[in-house]
Amino acid sequence: MDYEKIIMGIDPGTNVMGYGLLGINGKKLTPIVLGAIELNKVGDHYLRLARIYERVTGLVEQYLPDELAIEAPFYGKNVQSMLKLGRAQGVAMAAALARDIPIAEYAPLKVKQVVTGNGGASKEQVANMLCYILKMEKSKLPSLLDATDALAVALTHYYERQKPSAGGGAKNWEQFLKQHPERIVK
Amino acid sequence: MDYEKIIMGIDPGTNVMGYGLLGINGKKLTPIVLGAIELNKVGDHYLRLARIYERVTGLVEQYLPDELAIEAPFYGKNVQSMLKLGRAQGVAMAAALARDIPIAEYAPLKVKQVVTGNGGASKEQVANMLCYILKMEKSKLPSLLDATDALAVALTHYYERQKPSAGGGAKNWEQFLKQHPERIVK
Repeated sequence: MDYEKIIMGIDPGTNVMGYGLLGINGKKLTPIVLGAIELNKVGDHYLRLARIYERVTGLVEQYLPDELAIEAPFYGKNVQSMLKLGRAQGVAMAAALARDIPIAEYAPLKVKQVVTGNGGASKEQVANMLCYILKMEKSKLPSLLDATDALAVALTHYYERQKPSAGGGAKNWEQFLKQHPERIVK
Repeated sequence: MDYEKIIMGIDPGTNVMGYGLLGINGKKLTPIVLGAIELNKVGDHYLRLARIYERVTGLVEQYLPDELAIEAPFYGKNVQSMLKLGRAQGVAMAAALARDIPIAEYAPLKVKQVVTGNGGASKEQVANMLCYILKMEKSKLPSLLDATDALAVALTHYYERQKPSAGGGAKNWEQFLKQHPERIVK
């Protein structure tokens, strides 16, 4: 199936990397593929980075996404863990930069806020809302919530680009809600 | 000119990235190329990462190095700067990982210690010692000391691989010094 646009969402951690690709046709949103790589089974730090690079490169080559949205915490426990996280983000970004794919990043709080309306939502709540919006059966999803997290980043990027301030076309919130009835949670 | 082995040294910072390639033929060490990219002239964070990735990929394709040695501080001012440094390291590493080039990393103190014998040496002292060991004219070097720093990492990697404990062949220090008379500073 062809899409007008494909957004790749990545949640790059040092233990698990989640990915999710979102196809867009007009207002129709389709989850193309989502999954997670367990990196904590790979002992060596460089092998982990290599696995991230290979997988992201593989997804880029297979699905030719137009944009990359990455979940990026801006703070962490300590400088050591932030350096490792930065490296994981860096190799994932390199796979996109190698093909001139624009990158956008969103803090975890922002993703939760945009998808569920609540910045303090749990991963389960994000997954449930995602299933509702994208009409996915939860039982068929990967068990690792990093996968739904990644798809949530892609969805966040889609919504952010549609926002009035981003030049998405709507002139006010009333018009925005008319254009995006799926954003109204009944 | 052909070399038995080429080591690429990288000093990836978020403001300047230094690089230096060291050719090895037996005990003869040749600086092939060294330089630095000023990233602080590039405003956008992703453009900086893209520049690092492009340059490292370019060097890899042009010189086909066998190994990558990277200067990697393990601590920093704050988590924010470490995340950025991690990203810079990550994109540089990705360029090597994409071609299965093994990576080794050395803390700045280690590089100074191995090259000058003093972990507290200044960048100038490292550059001077490097000129002495590799018979380079200091006046012909790039003005940015990040370039000599990067070549120093490559040299550190070469020495570390030659160490008795690394299986370099020498059975004791006496034999090691016989094999490496250039290490004796007169």
